[in-house]
Amino acid sequence: MRQYLSSNMIVLVPQAEIDAAVQLLLKLKVDYKQMTGQDYKAGCPPSENLIVSNNGPAADDCDGEDLVDPWNVSASSTKGVDYDKLIVRFGSSKIDKELLERIEKVSGQRAHHFLRRGIFFSHRDMHQILDAYEKHKSFYLYTGRGPSSEAMHVGHLIPFIFTKWLQDVFDIPLVIQMTDDEKYLWKDLTLEECHRFTVENAKDIIACGFDVNKTFIFSDLDYMGASPQFYRNVVKVQKHVTFNQVKGIFGFTDSDCIGKISFPAIQAAPSFSSSFPQIFGGKKDVPCLIPCAIDQDPYFRMTRDVAPRIGLLKPALLHSTFFPALQGAQTKMSASDPNSSIFLTDTPKQIKNKVNKHAFSGGKDTVEEHRKYGGNTEVDVSFLYLTFFLEDDEKLEKIKEDYTSGALLTGELKKILIETLQPMIAQHQERRKQVTDEMVQQFMTPRPLNFKF
Amino acid sequence: MRQYLSSNMIVLVPQAEIDAAVQLLLKLKVDYKQMTGQDYKAGCPPSENLIVSNNGPAADDCDGEDLVDPWNVSASSTKGVDYDKLIVRFGSSKIDKELLERIEKVSGQRAHHFLRRGIFFSHRDMHQILDAYEKHKSFYLYTGRGPSSEAMHVGHLIPFIFTKWLQDVFDIPLVIQMTDDEKYLWKDLTLEECHRFTVENAKDIIACGFDVNKTFIFSDLDYMGASPQFYRNVVKVQKHVTFNQVKGIFGFTDSDCIGKISFPAIQAAPSFSSSFPQIFGGKKDVPCLIPCAIDQDPYFRMTRDVAPRIGLLKPALLHSTFFPALQGAQTKMSASDPNSSIFLTDTPKQIKNKVNKHAFSGGKDTVEEHRKYGGNTEVDVSFLYLTFFLEDDEKLEKIKEDYTSGALLTGELKKILIETLQPMIAQHQERRKQVTDEMVQQFMTPRPLNFKF
Repeated sequence: MRQYLSSNMIVLVPQAEIDAAVQLLLKLKVDYKQMTGQDYKAGCPPSENLIVSNNGPAADDCDGEDLVDPWNVSASSTKGVDYDKLIVRFGSSKIDKELLERIEKVSGQRAHHFLRRGIFFSHRDMHQILDAYEKHKSFYLYTGRGPSSEAMHVGHLIPFIFTKWLQDVFDIPLVIQMTDDEKYLWKDLTLEECHRFTVENAKDIIACGFDVNKTFIFSDLDYMGASPQFYRNVVKVQKHVTFNQVKGIFGFTDSDCIGKISFPAIQAAPSFSSSFPQIFGGKKDVPCLIPCAIDQDPYFRMTRDVAPRIGLLKPALLHSTFFPALQGAQTKMSASDPNSSIFLTDTPKQIKNKVNKHAFSGGKDTVEEHRKYGGNTEVDVSFLYLTFFLEDDEKLEKIKEDYTSGALLTGELKKILIETLQPMIAQHQERRKQVTDEMVQQFMTPRPLNFKF
Repeated sequence: MRQYLSSNMIVLVPQAEIDAAVQLLLKLKVDYKQMTGQDYKAGCPPSENLIVSNNGPAADDCDGEDLVDPWNVSASSTKGVDYDKLIVRFGSSKIDKELLERIEKVSGQRAHHFLRRGIFFSHRDMHQILDAYEKHKSFYLYTGRGPSSEAMHVGHLIPFIFTKWLQDVFDIPLVIQMTDDEKYLWKDLTLEECHRFTVENAKDIIACGFDVNKTFIFSDLDYMGASPQFYRNVVKVQKHVTFNQVKGIFGFTDSDCIGKISFPAIQAAPSFSSSFPQIFGGKKDVPCLIPCAIDQDPYFRMTRDVAPRIGLLKPALLHSTFFPALQGAQTKMSASDPNSSIFLTDTPKQIKNKVNKHAFSGGKDTVEEHRKYGGNTEVDVSFLYLTFFLEDDEKLEKIKEDYTSGALLTGELKKILIETLQPMIAQHQERRKQVTDEMVQQFMTPRPLNFKF
């Protein structure tokens, strides 16, 4: 029995489902051995010439705990990643009721449903950001995306939807890093491909509704070569982090290329306002708040460790849970498996088919059983997706009640999700169509934003 | 018995001098232990929190061979670095009579005395550069300097004097990298200090007489943040070199910062013409020739290994011996010890005093003995300095004869050196005075040069 997503949803997992999941896991282990020739060990990826994993994890992740780093997310338990444990292990703080209320008070807005429902569940130093904001000291937002393919799925929108809300309620600048250099270093892609993915992905990000006067989107491949101040911060970080440290944090090995080894400094640098003199007029003490999925936290643990040693401010963080794959909540989705999620390019028909065919159901095998025992919203992917995309709390609560009681059948639940996603994706596609190359160019040009610092 | 500097100067080292040198070495070992608390082991520097050495050497350098890498040069024998052995160990080629004659034939000029006297003694692929040049395919020159202090000594001028000659006889573009980022990473200096040293050192380099229309001088701290193409080449190299490789080549350890570990890619990148689209119009196949001291070869061994794997040309190299310290030929000079060399800021009086006081003499203890047995030009630093700076071959040969025979006394030899250096340094100072900040700015602005590609 454990909490999931929201503090007021506590659900028991029936033994039958645990058994089924265990059977699935055993089958996967056999498949794994067939594909890789190696025995599966939780948290220990196969050797590096296989595509399955690009980096060995830190040694202490091989002992059966959940594995969460920027390249691997896998749960040791069939119940998925244990986020409460993660908070303890990462040393972050839970977003509790008090913080929620403070955010509402300071922003003067009702908290976003991602906050209300525990999708953003963990933080570092958010109280300091709010303390300063109350004293009329502004801050800025930094988030990012690794453009590993042209196609983005709905899960990729989570940080951007939330960041847009933060920007709207606090009225602050936003920088969005596209780590095309990272993708070049980690994947079998050319520089040109990675840069093209940056531009294509930027269109989807812009389609979330960002204001060009308040938002700077940058490609590492371009901006590293366009800002001496950015490079200076990168080198500062690189001087103060040893190989031993990145080995411990990211699980790098001696066989990793030197580009991977030094990359964390490039993801760290945007946490410092002096990396963007065109926006902050050279000020190096504008606080930074980073909304991101919890798997990116290792980068910022490192950044926060280095910051005081180079005379700069530690960034604050808001962490989200992982967006579940259609097949179930155990792992993060993969952009390379078209059936693992709903893509932003999917047609209404594709959305319908994917949800109906692939969305893991928490319902019972027969209508009779379902009516009698009810469905399990904790593992039902259609329901989980609704917690992300159905904003109306009352509707969501009603669906939960009805599904749990058995009044609502899996097919009906899936229909609600389909009818939520279809217009949402269609509207996104409509907005994306309006995004011209010139607009992307504008967003990606280093320039002052509409803020005075 | 071994060759030194020139192929026609073979000199025996008397046993008495070897014994004296051994005594000195033993004394140094005692001092070493007092300072570091560790036993001295040739090629194995003390632990990293000491200033004596900034990097552990590659493991295979700890077996009593000469240690030569970009941060350490020390000879295992009292006879100094064995350059012939170094050629075998590094896998480069000797600059032999045939190559000398070819350079003279292709350039239509008498070879520079640094070539004639074996100061530039080793090369990689110089024949290919000449083959292409004969077919009217141009190339470019790349050299550099690590600006670790404001003060440069005469030894620092060697690559620039030679590079200027190459540029003059072949009429080709030149790029000069100032690795201020490297110095920041390796030394206890701020970014601002390193960048200031770049500008100050650039003035001394410009004072060597380079043509602003043919020469681009760049600070890494500036140019990394000013050229997306340069950064793209850096990342390409970084993707194709592992930590294992830089560990083997440079002796990095797990305790080294990630900036050091990835830095070799930044010294590699200027070897590729695509790093300078403003000069080469985006052409990526303009061959590169790198004149440098042999201790920089590890960087370019790595570069040459990577180049074909990223579809780029291997750079060719011309290697020089080390410029001896006033105290003797065993080690490279140190910019931090004002008495170890003649600095470009020294007054005529300082030059006179330093040479008279500190220049290691190959003469005998008494005038009588000297007249009887003659002096040793192989270890006499005044004579060695003259091989660098006295261009007249006949005069040099006469000095050698007279010193070896005992006709010329040490004081007289030192006087010749003093009278060679004083006007040379004064003229340098005069030229440096004419170098304005605007001129430095011009040299350091990314721009097209006066060449069509």
